Amino acid sequence: MPRHPERVNLTEKFRLIQEHWRPKVVGELNGQEIKLVKFKGEFIWHHHANEDELFLVWRGRFRIEFHDRIVELSEGEFLIVPHGVEHRTVADEEVEVLLFEPASTRNTGNVEDEKLTAPIGDRLQL
Amino acid sequence: MPRHPERVNLTEKFRLIQEHWRPKVVGELNGQEIKLVKFKGEFIWHHHANEDELFLVWRGRFRIEFHDRIVELSEGEFLIVPHGVEHRTVADEEVEVLLFEPASTRNTGNVEDEKLTAPIGDRLQL
Repeated sequence: MPRHPERVNLTEKFRLIQEHWRPKVVGELNGQEIKLVKFKGEFIWHHHANEDELFLVWRGRFRIEFHDRIVELSEGEFLIVPHGVEHRTVADEEVEVLLFEPASTRNTGNVEDEKLTAPIGDRLQL
Repeated sequence: MPRHPERVNLTEKFRLIQEHWRPKVVGELNGQEIKLVKFKGEFIWHHHANEDELFLVWRGRFRIEFHDRIVELSEGEFLIVPHGVEHRTVADEEVEVLLFEPASTRNTGNVEDEKLTAPIGDRLQL
């Protein structure tokens, strides 16, 4: 934890992200991380055994599918997916999402996917 | 942690907050809380012995004063104040701020203030 904390501008940071489904760490505190990610298309069904996961929409919209229902999220809306709950994220158009979750949470949770599983702890190159 | 997670709309939730300097819990995950708070005026100098604290501006602007510098934060900007670092928040105009910090973090940290110390774990009445 740096002793000289820096301001982070979300719009500027999202501009640096080109790939979809690759969360980038932009802050850390209390063993948790703030990550920014762009979604487009369909992710895979997965759950996180131990980690609750917050999704906050910064720009755009997407939906989180559960086995028993679907929740649509628009700008300025968040949802916390409890650990153990299987879910899938789907974005018809590109969406910018802020994640809060424990450090070292794997994006695909219990699933290892050759294409979609992203590096853990990947930081933006500034 | 409810097994049936609900969508939270930040703008709607901020509309329910009337007081300044009284954080309201709107979500919890991994032992952390998401709180919404409106600032206006000058807070008091304090630090948190163990908790790092994230401030994200939703609407408006304010500044965080440290003993050696001042950081201005506008909409869409966040800053993480590390534990142990004394700071003071100042808002010339009302500002809407999202906090992310460990559950049961006291808003005035090491200081007990008759007027400013807010109840811990205060939730929005919905």
